[in-house]
Amino acid sequence: MREVLPTGGFPPMLPAADHGEGEESMPDGSRIGVWIVGARGSVATTAIVGTAAVGSGIVAPTGMVTAHPPLDSARLPRLESLVFGGHDVVSTPLVKRAEQLAAEGVFPRDLVAGVADRLVAADADIVVAPGDELSPGAVVTRIHDDLTSFRQRHDLDRIVVVNLASTEAPPAWDHAPVDQAEMDAALEDWATCPVSVVSALAAIRSGSAFVDFTPAAATTVPALVAMATYAGVPFVGRDGKTGETLLKTVLAPMFADRSLRVLSWVGTNILGGGDGDRLADPHYAASKLDTKAQALDRMLPNDVHSKVHIDHVPDMGEWKTAWDHVHFEGFLGTRMNLQFTWQGCDSALAAPLVIDLARLAAAALARGVGGPIPELGFFFKDPIGSDDDRLGPQFTALCEWAATL
Amino acid sequence: MREVLPTGGFPPMLPAADHGEGEESMPDGSRIGVWIVGARGSVATTAIVGTAAVGSGIVAPTGMVTAHPPLDSARLPRLESLVFGGHDVVSTPLVKRAEQLAAEGVFPRDLVAGVADRLVAADADIVVAPGDELSPGAVVTRIHDDLTSFRQRHDLDRIVVVNLASTEAPPAWDHAPVDQAEMDAALEDWATCPVSVVSALAAIRSGSAFVDFTPAAATTVPALVAMATYAGVPFVGRDGKTGETLLKTVLAPMFADRSLRVLSWVGTNILGGGDGDRLADPHYAASKLDTKAQALDRMLPNDVHSKVHIDHVPDMGEWKTAWDHVHFEGFLGTRMNLQFTWQGCDSALAAPLVIDLARLAAAALARGVGGPIPELGFFFKDPIGSDDDRLGPQFTALCEWAATL
Amino acid sequence: MREVLPTGGFPPMLPAADHGEGEESMPDGSRIGVWIVGARGSVATTAIVGTAAVGSGIVAPTGMVTAHPPLDSARLPRLESLVFGGHDVVSTPLVKRAEQLAAEGVFPRDLVAGVADRLVAADADIVVAPGDELSPGAVVTRIHDDLTSFRQRHDLDRIVVVNLASTEAPPAWDHAPVDQAEMDAALEDWATCPVSVVSALAAIRSGSAFVDFTPAAATTVPALVAMATYAGVPFVGRDGKTGETLLKTVLAPMFADRSLRVLSWVGTNILGGGDGDRLADPHYAASKLDTKAQALDRMLPNDVHSKVHIDHVPDMGEWKTAWDHVHFEGFLGTRMNLQFTWQGCDSALAAPLVIDLARLAAAALARGVGGPIPELGFFFKDPIGSDDDRLGPQFTALCEWAATL
Amino acid sequence: MREVLPTGGFPPMLPAADHGEGEESMPDGSRIGVWIVGARGSVATTAIVGTAAVGSGIVAPTGMVTAHPPLDSARLPRLESLVFGGHDVVSTPLVKRAEQLAAEGVFPRDLVAGVADRLVAADADIVVAPGDELSPGAVVTRIHDDLTSFRQRHDLDRIVVVNLASTEAPPAWDHAPVDQAEMDAALEDWATCPVSVVSALAAIRSGSAFVDFTPAAATTVPALVAMATYAGVPFVGRDGKTGETLLKTVLAPMFADRSLRVLSWVGTNILGGGDGDRLADPHYAASKLDTKAQALDRMLPNDVHSKVHIDHVPDMGEWKTAWDHVHFEGFLGTRMNLQFTWQGCDSALAAPLVIDLARLAAAALARGVGGPIPELGFFFKDPIGSDDDRLGPQFTALCEWAATL
Repeated sequence: MREVLPTGGFPPMLPAADHGEGEESMPDGSRIGVWIVGARGSVATTAIVGTAAVGSGIVAPTGMVTAHPPLDSARLPRLESLVFGGHDVVSTPLVKRAEQLAAEGVFPRDLVAGVADRLVAADADIVVAPGDELSPGAVVTRIHDDLTSFRQRHDLDRIVVVNLASTEAPPAWDHAPVDQAEMDAALEDWATCPVSVVSALAAIRSGSAFVDFTPAAATTVPALVAMATYAGVPFVGRDGKTGETLLKTVLAPMFADRSLRVLSWVGTNILGGGDGDRLADPHYAASKLDTKAQALDRMLPNDVHSKVHIDHVPDMGEWKTAWDHVHFEGFLGTRMNLQFTWQGCDSALAAPLVIDLARLAAAALARGVGGPIPELGFFFKDPIGSDDDRLGPQFTALCEWAATL
Repeated sequence: MREVLPTGGFPPMLPAADHGEGEESMPDGSRIGVWIVGARGSVATTAIVGTAAVGSGIVAPTGMVTAHPPLDSARLPRLESLVFGGHDVVSTPLVKRAEQLAAEGVFPRDLVAGVADRLVAADADIVVAPGDELSPGAVVTRIHDDLTSFRQRHDLDRIVVVNLASTEAPPAWDHAPVDQAEMDAALEDWATCPVSVVSALAAIRSGSAFVDFTPAAATTVPALVAMATYAGVPFVGRDGKTGETLLKTVLAPMFADRSLRVLSWVGTNILGGGDGDRLADPHYAASKLDTKAQALDRMLPNDVHSKVHIDHVPDMGEWKTAWDHVHFEGFLGTRMNLQFTWQGCDSALAAPLVIDLARLAAAALARGVGGPIPELGFFFKDPIGSDDDRLGPQFTALCEWAATL
Repeated sequence: MREVLPTGGFPPMLPAADHGEGEESMPDGSRIGVWIVGARGSVATTAIVGTAAVGSGIVAPTGMVTAHPPLDSARLPRLESLVFGGHDVVSTPLVKRAEQLAAEGVFPRDLVAGVADRLVAADADIVVAPGDELSPGAVVTRIHDDLTSFRQRHDLDRIVVVNLASTEAPPAWDHAPVDQAEMDAALEDWATCPVSVVSALAAIRSGSAFVDFTPAAATTVPALVAMATYAGVPFVGRDGKTGETLLKTVLAPMFADRSLRVLSWVGTNILGGGDGDRLADPHYAASKLDTKAQALDRMLPNDVHSKVHIDHVPDMGEWKTAWDHVHFEGFLGTRMNLQFTWQGCDSALAAPLVIDLARLAAAALARGVGGPIPELGFFFKDPIGSDDDRLGPQFTALCEWAATL
Repeated sequence: MREVLPTGGFPPMLPAADHGEGEESMPDGSRIGVWIVGARGSVATTAIVGTAAVGSGIVAPTGMVTAHPPLDSARLPRLESLVFGGHDVVSTPLVKRAEQLAAEGVFPRDLVAGVADRLVAADADIVVAPGDELSPGAVVTRIHDDLTSFRQRHDLDRIVVVNLASTEAPPAWDHAPVDQAEMDAALEDWATCPVSVVSALAAIRSGSAFVDFTPAAATTVPALVAMATYAGVPFVGRDGKTGETLLKTVLAPMFADRSLRVLSWVGTNILGGGDGDRLADPHYAASKLDTKAQALDRMLPNDVHSKVHIDHVPDMGEWKTAWDHVHFEGFLGTRMNLQFTWQGCDSALAAPLVIDLARLAAAALARGVGGPIPELGFFFKDPIGSDDDRLGPQFTALCEWAATL
């Protein structure tokens, strides 16, 4: 017997729930846990408020791709079947967080009152994130226990773990662990074991799907990819594309399809709350800038001078503005340019995609789809398992795949 | 038997050249005439300069989609095989027109000296456009004669007629002619017979392909569509998409694919030379605004408040700036917006597409493809024969089709 | 003796209140009525909410120039001394209007609750505007009566009438009335007597200051200017500059001071509520476009190709976006450009200026300053009595003048 | 007698030319040398081309403030009286440099042919800049000799030294030298003696005016300011304001005058040639970012979150684009924003100002005006001798001062 998993002293995986019958039960009966790392953050709070509000018919599901044709006919769990829980380092009640977001204009304040009981209920399932006083390995065990307890408490059929934590610094390793031995070694020290890896490991160990909506390292770690594939759990990411990069993935193909030669593509992002503070630190920003830059290189046939700035501008609050300048060459060497300004609310853009991903990952888990899912590349800046960053083909692939669930 | 074609007293069609062997001979031997209505305009001049300059290897073919993968492997006529001629109302020599454009920055002035002999040669094939002192029917005959003479003079295998005339006013008819009888009646009076219809009729009658790069009526006339289909000549259009509309056809699908609800899409175009003067007249602008507006409606699932202004700003010369403001609603009703500014040189954007279309239409003519060609929708604001305005799928369709030529 | 005033059968002017002692009493005792034409509109409601909120110290007076150095040391009536009343065609209670504006993001909803009693109080002083079933002359009398009653009801020392009505169509007269005879003739028919003239006449007749914050005709009518000057009542306007024009009045001087030659200045304004609907009608928009265009001509030494669009885009709600494109020529003929986008809330920009003007006009009235006040040009697109549109010199002039009050 | 100057072993100052009779002779007879540090750079070349072209009436003096009312009536040297010379590290002939600039669109190529003889003449007066193989003190002597020779060769009445060298790194001193002793010490080592200081010292020593159009340290050095004041030579700077900062100095006063509270002002500059390369190095950029930031702080009453990026984008060539985002708060806390994009050619913007400054400084030198000239603040990002950065008041001050020359 090949003893790849479990590693070290980890508890055995949770008994696989009902993968076999998943496709039948999902749309009408199964209960899905959505365990969020960073569960009191702006995106998470908006997702929880929105799931309740849309699920109860108070507002339309604008921005949720699984609620519109053709994906609305895929076999996905209902919004009412989603149960939220998770970790966070802060303990502000969700109702209060929601009121703060409403004051920033993220959603109407009336909405909060209408879903307050759901927020209070979710509060009970959000536990304080374990800190680095424990070893990484001990934290994996702790999260595993939290997931087990969450599953039992709500009689959940399946769990999807979604990473919405602040951008983490690139890990200080020579190379990412590729097998069990390297993974075990990395687990000895926080310097070589980013929090996202710990979360992912706990997710896989407990038979949960793992979705990374941040630019964290976890989904790029070969050892984890192999482990998730072996375990038959979806392992998808990374870094949701919600603004500047989303635009790049439709505009760059336009230049390419028209044989226009992009010379330079430079941009500046200004943002306030949420990740803004952390991204102002170049050390942390490195992860983000990395996922932002790669897409462009993959979509254009020639080398492009590119540069992206991320500025933390506290007064912007929950809002984000991106300005991009694209300088290109056309026929006979003529120089022209395109500029765009995107003014959006990050939480409003990201939250519905988080719900979409939770539904899609839960369905994939029910079908036993393990490891990266290239067809979910539509959602990500750096789609693990795929090298096509173009939004149009990504959407086509997503729809075709979802029809098979 | 219903004698649809030829109509009335029109001369018989020119003998079909060598359709049967076209696919073999094209890339290496046949000679293609490109007959341009508006042959001394900015776009035409740039296309003639560019064909010579690119054909002789002086500059790279940036902006020509048929010169880049995968279309560069399609069986298309070589640039060196293209012979230019046409009509125009002005008689300024092409070398002088080219120098004017170089002074405006459309291309480097050095280029003009390098291709001057080619421009002088083309001058000899550009005749003064017949005016409205003749009846529409008489002008059809006259153009037909010009095409015959052009073909014989250069021993051409095939001709592609390309309409690059200034935007024409919408015709004063209740409905476009649907059959021979109505077409014959329309030909009696210039009020019911726009110049584009006359050009198209002469093209079809002479067995030439017809490409409308303007928002003219010709390609929407059922009688002409039937006639071209019957005659086995390509009949494609209309209104090249080179700027604002090009962007719309990648951005609108992005909003649709992400289930974001566009509330309004308003824009302002400012342009100087070329068509700017004419488009400042609301009567003429109607055609243009019409083709611009339709694409949006077809690509978005909901009604959108849309508005497009076209302003003639003489000091802009050959340059064009478009500003668009897209107001959209996201999750939980949050309002956000996208703005873009596109600063381009219209001739530099349009000319390579004209060359692409001449090559593709010539190849289709060689293969006997008659009537509208939906797979050429990639080039047009209002693609006749297709209702898919999305650039990505259009490019895929174009490439697949071109591979069959 | 030329009997200019009073005209016809008008009631005599109200007894001049306490002009003589005004300068002493104002900052500490006098009561000022602010009678608004269009008192339930967005700007008026915001001004009433804001006067109460700022006056009671709930929020800072951002945007009010009379509340910041150096104007905060001028002798002006206190905010607490302002009593609001006026006319409107709608009867929605102010509290409800304020809640609507708060929902659009014009100000925080909490503010409404804090000043609700003040809004309810003002409701009692807002009467339904007389319609055109009466003759213009009869309406003048009616408004005069309303002002008298307002004054008595609140024991007011002075009244300032502020026109915030929707943009009115240009009057159908050959020339504006220049004397009493022509004024009397104009008063016979609504076609030759715009509502603004009726309001202005009633204001002057009752000894009130008149401030036109709209592009209405009143302040350009020579007969009214003479009448106000004779009567010793301030008569100021017109059309508050709050966005695109405000920017023009600092940017155009920059180009002029630097000897850069502006070639064209074109812009597009998109706006939703408020005046947007009316301005979409070219007949009404004419007034607005007129005041917008003139400033540019006065500030630049050469002829400039200029164009302004105003589009009604309902989904923009209370928000307004202006995009301007300035094409200019520099040294040795080099062409360059400046673009700006201004995204503002019209009511938030206009309301504090209305309060400023009410305070300044009240102080001027107390000092017996009659007719146009060039030093108030700072506030207006088309400053009556001045031909200097440059914001900087206007601010200097305002501050110097205010110091003399 | 206070022996402040000359220091150490420096040669004595050149005999003061004809200060006494300057005001009479200037407009009609005197000859002015313009000695440029960086004389083959883009700005210098454009200034030399432009002086010749404008002086001979080939093109209009657009962008030169001294050629337009009211400054055109000031007593300033004629363009024909300006003789150019200077230092540079490269030796490309000016005609070739001019052709390169014409190819980039900075000015029409025809212009170069028309002034070629003037460029060839200037070539003879541009010497290779001394390198750091000599000590700073030795280089001062060497430049002094060059200036003496230049003066004698052309029988010049006066010389203006203009620094147009690439942005220099901030000097590695604790504090700038404040007296002769510290200046002498600084001259021992290049680490404590930036090139601009050496140029300035040589200029003062030779009785020439010194103008710093870059963000170099020279004009902020107390010892040099004292020396220039004592010597009666104009000593002005620094860092010409030509784009983003120019706009800031009209827009910031607008916000201030309207009591709107600017929360943040962030911007990105992208530029190619000229200084772009050097400014991409954070060490050099520090000087530039410093002069850019200060103006904003001086013009706004509250603390503003500000940030400026400068990106070197080689494909932009001689062109520069600045995007600024201004987030501000209006009445009742409403958040609004202004964005602008400035697309300009740096050389075309800077060159006419260099000519203006040479003329103004020559006139001041003729009048014996020594040290900083606050009235020239109009031209600079960081106006030495003045703390008013507002363009309007600066222009007024300039005009009033020029009228006294």
